[in-house]
Amino acid sequence: MEQKQHLTTTIIGLGLIGGTMAWALRDQGLTSYIIGVDNNEAHSKRALELGIIDELLPLDRAVKAADLVILAVPVTTAATLLPQILDMTDRQVITDVGSTKRGLVLAAAGHPKRGRYVPAHPMWGTEFSGPEAARRNVLEGVVNIICDQKDSDKDALALIEHLLRSLGMRLVYMDSLSHDTHLAYVSHIAHISSFALANTVLEKEKEEETIFNLASSGFESTVRLAKSNSETWVPVFKQNKENVLDVLNEYISQLRKFKSSLEKENWTYLNELIESSNKIKKVLDKKQQDKNQPAGLINKA
Amino acid sequence: MEQKQHLTTTIIGLGLIGGTMAWALRDQGLTSYIIGVDNNEAHSKRALELGIIDELLPLDRAVKAADLVILAVPVTTAATLLPQILDMTDRQVITDVGSTKRGLVLAAAGHPKRGRYVPAHPMWGTEFSGPEAARRNVLEGVVNIICDQKDSDKDALALIEHLLRSLGMRLVYMDSLSHDTHLAYVSHIAHISSFALANTVLEKEKEEETIFNLASSGFESTVRLAKSNSETWVPVFKQNKENVLDVLNEYISQLRKFKSSLEKENWTYLNELIESSNKIKKVLDKKQQDKNQPAGLINKA
Repeated sequence: MEQKQHLTTTIIGLGLIGGTMAWALRDQGLTSYIIGVDNNEAHSKRALELGIIDELLPLDRAVKAADLVILAVPVTTAATLLPQILDMTDRQVITDVGSTKRGLVLAAAGHPKRGRYVPAHPMWGTEFSGPEAARRNVLEGVVNIICDQKDSDKDALALIEHLLRSLGMRLVYMDSLSHDTHLAYVSHIAHISSFALANTVLEKEKEEETIFNLASSGFESTVRLAKSNSETWVPVFKQNKENVLDVLNEYISQLRKFKSSLEKENWTYLNELIESSNKIKKVLDKKQQDKNQPAGLINKA
Repeated sequence: MEQKQHLTTTIIGLGLIGGTMAWALRDQGLTSYIIGVDNNEAHSKRALELGIIDELLPLDRAVKAADLVILAVPVTTAATLLPQILDMTDRQVITDVGSTKRGLVLAAAGHPKRGRYVPAHPMWGTEFSGPEAARRNVLEGVVNIICDQKDSDKDALALIEHLLRSLGMRLVYMDSLSHDTHLAYVSHIAHISSFALANTVLEKEKEEETIFNLASSGFESTVRLAKSNSETWVPVFKQNKENVLDVLNEYISQLRKFKSSLEKENWTYLNELIESSNKIKKVLDKKQQDKNQPAGLINKA
């Protein structure tokens, strides 16, 4: 795959993830030229200034000029753009970075060029947005989920696998339905939990000075995701509505157990609830240890 | 207050906070000798090995030998011990580190030695516990809330203020009732939110491997507090039951707004809910900036 060193890449959406993918491909020498597409003029200009991209082009010219197209816009926009991009595709490989996968797969389903699309989801992000938020050297060891890989052309899949592995990412394969169910649990609900926590505190604690003085690092950690932007997250909840509602119902029911233990002063039950939640430590600590291992150990091609 | 450099300190409870306070006082040369009390033998032994304390003594001998006594046990235990310690007190100053204050203040109310007690709450912690979890050089710039300061003897209050300021901590003064109300918002609910989130994921996502592979840094951040131990937190919820229930009800009601916006596919409302929660950013960012300022700016004696 030596010839791929001269890859021209088009990034659609020059925000946190698009910018971070651009830096990673560039820093690893996996692309020779990056074209940017974004209808936000300030983001476009800044991405060019920062050196994230080499050139700005309109969508159609950017796709035509590319070997690789990375869709990094909100997931509903991505689902709208994907069939249009597939229409323009001849040799190009298209991938994406969205936090939901089913909506995109359905948007491409039945398209004669469906095979050129490789649905992917890098499990990395921060609560910040825009090209300034893009970071370098952060993707090594990060899981990237590839969905419905049998529906992608072999060469398209091989290119994406090669690039992501070259970035040190750990590939996990999953069908798009399972992806969205699992993600509702391990990511989407955490965002709703934080958004609602922030609203609770802002609603009841009217004195900002008090929040500011008293908020501990624990509170800051729990509420961190409430900084996440609605442009990204409303589309995710839209596309994963049923799964997110299932988990949200379960979450409210778990909170009611805490409420009931307090109301009934059933401290044994409260103790059980907390000890049961402590089991998450085992999972997270294992994850932490694993980060120190060489990448690729959990690849399951 | 030069003579106080030869202070003998007794720390009751050799865990995360007791150990961290011990290190801080020792490292700043604010105490010449530290006596430890803990009915957990493993913790006692380890605190001695680690050099957190100089000597282990039974409670009564440890109090008698001390100038300063720091109660760093779970808050219900602290409320039980406090009157016993006041009974043994002549010159000693007693302070504590508990996440609730009203229960302790009530436990000491009317005691002839009440003035020797200075209720305090350092707004620092991690999700870990035990003497191994104690950390050095972490208290500078951290808020420490002193409650009901008019009920403490002037010399006792002055000693605690001197010591905490010498550690670079920022003193905030508050009555104990307000403390517990505010803390329910900015700390206690965040713990319940995390405990319930961990239980939700553990309940529904039976494959640990999947949580492990997919959990993003966002999820890890939100669920971090679910590692916190029940020995510390059941007593906090016990002592702050009414406030925590109020906030928990508000939190569930905020989550129901998210649920309703999803069920009705009211994306404008969902967008408003998220944008409203984003306001927490202003508060947290201000806090982050302030951490870089010299300590003491927000002291309000």
